Amino acid sequence: MQDFGLPPGQVYTPEIRFVDIDAAGIVNNATYFNYFEQSRIAFFEPLLGRKWDWNSAGMVVARHEIDYRAPILFLDEIRIITWIEHIGAKSMIAGYEVYKYDREKWLLAANAKTVLVSYNHNEGRPAPWSQDLVKAAKDFGFGRPDI
Amino acid sequence: MQDFGLPPGQVYTPEIRFVDIDAAGIVNNATYFNYFEQSRIAFFEPLLGRKWDWNSAGMVVARHEIDYRAPILFLDEIRIITWIEHIGAKSMIAGYEVYKYDREKWLLAANAKTVLVSYNHNEGRPAPWSQDLVKAAKDFGFGRPDI
Amino acid sequence: MQDFGLPPGQVYTPEIRFVDIDAAGIVNNATYFNYFEQSRIAFFEPLLGRKWDWNSAGMVVARHEIDYRAPILFLDEIRIITWIEHIGAKSMIAGYEVYKYDREKWLLAANAKTVLVSYNHNEGRPAPWSQDLVKAAKDFGFGRPDI
Amino acid sequence: MQDFGLPPGQVYTPEIRFVDIDAAGIVNNATYFNYFEQSRIAFFEPLLGRKWDWNSAGMVVARHEIDYRAPILFLDEIRIITWIEHIGAKSMIAGYEVYKYDREKWLLAANAKTVLVSYNHNEGRPAPWSQDLVKAAKDFGFGRPDI
Repeated sequence: MQDFGLPPGQVYTPEIRFVDIDAAGIVNNATYFNYFEQSRIAFFEPLLGRKWDWNSAGMVVARHEIDYRAPILFLDEIRIITWIEHIGAKSMIAGYEVYKYDREKWLLAANAKTVLVSYNHNEGRPAPWSQDLVKAAKDFGFGRPDI
Repeated sequence: MQDFGLPPGQVYTPEIRFVDIDAAGIVNNATYFNYFEQSRIAFFEPLLGRKWDWNSAGMVVARHEIDYRAPILFLDEIRIITWIEHIGAKSMIAGYEVYKYDREKWLLAANAKTVLVSYNHNEGRPAPWSQDLVKAAKDFGFGRPDI
Repeated sequence: MQDFGLPPGQVYTPEIRFVDIDAAGIVNNATYFNYFEQSRIAFFEPLLGRKWDWNSAGMVVARHEIDYRAPILFLDEIRIITWIEHIGAKSMIAGYEVYKYDREKWLLAANAKTVLVSYNHNEGRPAPWSQDLVKAAKDFGFGRPDI
Repeated sequence: MQDFGLPPGQVYTPEIRFVDIDAAGIVNNATYFNYFEQSRIAFFEPLLGRKWDWNSAGMVVARHEIDYRAPILFLDEIRIITWIEHIGAKSMIAGYEVYKYDREKWLLAANAKTVLVSYNHNEGRPAPWSQDLVKAAKDFGFGRPDI
């Protein structure tokens, strides 16, 4: 199984729990958003460090959109690629592609986008992004990686 | 608390479980899709009857989009309004609005859409909607209700 | 369907969500503990009032034990009976029975016990039960109700 | 961080998802049973192989008991040790210890037991354990490992 040759935080391997499978025998449609939450954490941790103060310089989910293309089964091998599509003064757009390993290649199983809004949880209100975060994002670069 | 004056299946009251609340103190963004799944079940049950054969005449989620407008807390009183926006030969669009009771009125907390594709689970492939389902949907009517 | 003739907070009707059903087609064994959490909330709310300060006079789960007797399916009608078995200075034992409606009678589907420890979350340490809570529990009475 | 020196399937490292954390800021008490489900899968896979037919030679959970000793937080490093305590003709007892890394050593955060009953899902009834499973269990050995 060849991998994507991307920085570690950009490729997230979800653990598919038995309980993630619903009565239809596939990963439930809601559970993808738990996977994306983990993939964002995996993406931002190398950028911002494990000690980033998410309470004062946090983010909240304002919008999701997702297209499901192929079901995910319990024993599937999955990867999620995450990137920043665009960053504005107080919001950003994250992009994701979910791949499953199928007949010796990676098949696109879903793609999605999330609008994230900068939020100061201590003060309970939106706030501009910290300059450290903007710089880290610019240094990393924007857009879907070539894979 | 005045209600919406809609047919019972069109107004769904989710039980907000303690475990639905995440570390940020609000209903987790993924959990809304569990609520929508239940609201679709509540919507279709009076239309199709409790004995509908979902294995031969089922549906799968092909796309979601959602805008989060206000957080939902553990003790919030919530209602979800569900409707069919449009029905095609093999797919339909469901619409939802999530309301929370706030200062003596219902506040729009989120709105969302789902593309559902007709699916025969027994045969493992898409299929045209059954005529019974199309008729039931037409008899109910399309679009966001006046509330 | 005849009910149990018990005070409202002592009989909890869980909403069985589609997503509660796992790949084996039954409510997952872990999900029972979410139901018990809700049944405890339903039990204590009429005793203590909705404005009880759970941060200063709270409780934490120290132990569970459960016996599963019959599987719960998506369309099953379920009731959970909750009681206090015993209260000590800093802990109490809660008991539960889970019933499903089966061939025109209530069948015992599971029974369980939880040890709860009094906890002051503001101070981050165990604490004796508040006298209001002990009095409310004594006024309600202890032990499995006759059903 | 020194590890336990045990066979790989006997030490399971759960991914602690953000959504596993509840409003109290800790892994919810129910979620431990999802972790144990994964730890059993991790334990049995090397014993029985990935192609074991769980439908004809499966198992169901008949009983759990758990003692919670220390809360688990989002950034905690966790290990679960799993073993077979005892195997009978149609049931077995699994044991678990949950460790968290705390001040440079592994702290016991919870311990638990599960009674598992041999079950033929194809026929919908209990069944004696397959001799292959009993032999694999005996070859592995019983009881809590020395750690």
